[in-house]
Amino acid sequence: MKTLRKPIYFVAGEYTVSLGTGRPEFHPKKPRPGLEHYIAEAGRAVLAHLPGPEAIDEGVIGNFMAARFNRQGHLGAFLSLVHEDLRYRPSIRVEGACASGGLAMATAVKSVLSEQADAVLTIGVEVQNTVKAVYGADILAGAGHYAGERKQGNAHFFPCRFSERAGAYMDRYGVERTWEAMGRWYEQAVLNARANPKAQEHTNALPDPFATHQQSKPNPRSFCDHLNVFDCSKVSDGGAALLVASEEGLARAGIAKDQAIQLVGLGHAVGDLTAPPEDLTVLDTTREAVRRALAMAGIDVREVGVFEIHDCFTITAILTCEALGLCGPGEGADYVAAGNTRRDGATPMNTGGGLIGYGHPTGASGVRMAVDIWRQLTGNAGDYQVEIPADRPYGLTISMGGNDKSVVSCVFRRA
Amino acid sequence: MKTLRKPIYFVAGEYTVSLGTGRPEFHPKKPRPGLEHYIAEAGRAVLAHLPGPEAIDEGVIGNFMAARFNRQGHLGAFLSLVHEDLRYRPSIRVEGACASGGLAMATAVKSVLSEQADAVLTIGVEVQNTVKAVYGADILAGAGHYAGERKQGNAHFFPCRFSERAGAYMDRYGVERTWEAMGRWYEQAVLNARANPKAQEHTNALPDPFATHQQSKPNPRSFCDHLNVFDCSKVSDGGAALLVASEEGLARAGIAKDQAIQLVGLGHAVGDLTAPPEDLTVLDTTREAVRRALAMAGIDVREVGVFEIHDCFTITAILTCEALGLCGPGEGADYVAAGNTRRDGATPMNTGGGLIGYGHPTGASGVRMAVDIWRQLTGNAGDYQVEIPADRPYGLTISMGGNDKSVVSCVFRRA
Repeated sequence: MKTLRKPIYFVAGEYTVSLGTGRPEFHPKKPRPGLEHYIAEAGRAVLAHLPGPEAIDEGVIGNFMAARFNRQGHLGAFLSLVHEDLRYRPSIRVEGACASGGLAMATAVKSVLSEQADAVLTIGVEVQNTVKAVYGADILAGAGHYAGERKQGNAHFFPCRFSERAGAYMDRYGVERTWEAMGRWYEQAVLNARANPKAQEHTNALPDPFATHQQSKPNPRSFCDHLNVFDCSKVSDGGAALLVASEEGLARAGIAKDQAIQLVGLGHAVGDLTAPPEDLTVLDTTREAVRRALAMAGIDVREVGVFEIHDCFTITAILTCEALGLCGPGEGADYVAAGNTRRDGATPMNTGGGLIGYGHPTGASGVRMAVDIWRQLTGNAGDYQVEIPADRPYGLTISMGGNDKSVVSCVFRRA
Repeated sequence: MKTLRKPIYFVAGEYTVSLGTGRPEFHPKKPRPGLEHYIAEAGRAVLAHLPGPEAIDEGVIGNFMAARFNRQGHLGAFLSLVHEDLRYRPSIRVEGACASGGLAMATAVKSVLSEQADAVLTIGVEVQNTVKAVYGADILAGAGHYAGERKQGNAHFFPCRFSERAGAYMDRYGVERTWEAMGRWYEQAVLNARANPKAQEHTNALPDPFATHQQSKPNPRSFCDHLNVFDCSKVSDGGAALLVASEEGLARAGIAKDQAIQLVGLGHAVGDLTAPPEDLTVLDTTREAVRRALAMAGIDVREVGVFEIHDCFTITAILTCEALGLCGPGEGADYVAAGNTRRDGATPMNTGGGLIGYGHPTGASGVRMAVDIWRQLTGNAGDYQVEIPADRPYGLTISMGGNDKSVVSCVFRRA
């Protein structure tokens, strides 16, 4: 089993507003900030916690598809937009579809473990509202096996892949209970977003989000067979950033230990992009990444007090509860419907709104998750703060790319 | 100054044919292998040196623009195309424009140094002949600051950026000697490619490549002011791969030390993508990356016996000789024209043809360079083998992205 050869800390987490439909300041036809803005905004917010740019040795930028959304590659070379003194620092862009943010963190962690750096500015960014939704769906299909799967495709590639999963789950475990759980997950996402001023759904004023979801049942004219629009994560622009540091890097940053979280488990697993899922109701790559992260941490999932999971669709959250081992196969729907994952539940998940409530700037999401865990474990989560039980002091993230193909899972505890 | 905390070996280097114009098997209208093919071909060629897939802990894939050339992201999840048993292994795609291959190696090195892996299959890949040249130029412009620079742009974005450098160099140091040196570099690239059966220019039958270059002087109707087509690297499809390993990883691979090269210096520097070069005749980011690599190795550049440099254009090679410190400012043209960089010269460069002779499958080039250094230092370079002097036992690579913006330089010696 792998171990971490030295202590690794995550500190100074920040993220931008998730901009897109739902945000009052979003207008589809008005000019909006670009990639460069979000990298600078998120990075400078971290820098504001530090004595200066000399506290940063390197940069890592996670991004999925700026190449097509913005015609821009080579994002590593935007690091010095954060501060001009960062010029000539090593910096790299990493990508693994919607797990790009998780991979940015894994890359930063390895850089610190390698002793090539003591403090890595880790940024995730995506700007997606540059194209119409139908073109955006084609762009996001590059997270799957484009040359293979896209042929079976349609204008809503990924929603349909997860709709197939929802259909299979409903077939095996019951339509009504699954549909109810999906509605409850949507309701929870909205309630959490209302407590997070940066969330895309922050001003969502639906009197009863659960009822609204339930009334919008997919039918033969829907865009997917088993999902409605409320089941989907948002199309978002945004950035997230934090500092990954060694003991020395933390001291140089002048940040007290009680404002840091320590990484104690890291699991990274990658499936075969060209192969369909073996069982549509199982997230096998997620399960493997989580198993590795928990094994490295030496803990059981029942010791985790707060979670950030990849709810690209409501059904994914249900399947993830099972992949985490919080409940058995087919029990995820009841687990969610019973309220376990709400802020006042036994295992709070996506407390700031997650991909459906906060939003899903794809390359940023993995980093945003770690920021929310950092906030929760250090008491910086404001209106969406939950109580972390003393006997369950850990936080866990799951950053997933594609249809359960690249997964990075991290386990943290307060330092 | 940074050091490498444990020995790192590069072994089992392989690359595919560089497919594109010039190769007899290339036909612009006939079907060609895709990304998946090159990842599998290059990766399996490395695997053939190993006892089996159990000798590989992780994968890293360097790629620049599959998102636009092939509409495909998420290349890390193609690792198991190399062998199905690699499923669930950690794998990541990294990108830094044309330095993506160099960044893949730096990432693999850090993974081994971090002790999260003992052996990393490191692959570079690009498939560019999917679009017409004019669209390709727009795609490659994503290596610069697209939103900023592209406005000044034209249909040949990068050739024109380096044409500006050539023009500035000619203005300051003389047109004729610069033009002659550019022709000599082209001639050298062709002669070296003729000795490398995988090279795109392998069957180039020009009776006098130097004369052909010299006769094709840019004029007001040329696509660039100061470059002709012979000055440009090729549009290529191809893959390159090798294994980056610790002492334990090398033993597990069953590879004898005399078939390995050891990394002794690593320099990674990144400039500001949004800023124009301060001096068009100077590659300042390259100079900084090389300085770091040589400092870590604790050697002078005069101890290096063989080089692989990023000759995206002939002028870049001239500027790189100066950035390396092999000669002073303005002396690079004479240095090249005098034959120093030929296989029989004092400092052989790009012995297998480089980006102009072998070809430039962009994301693969950085890895391909290390493969050529591995071949030279271990005596596996076949018809393009050079003699490595005992007092200059080092090999050096320079993988550059954009207009001297991301640079990874490595120094190796035979293990």
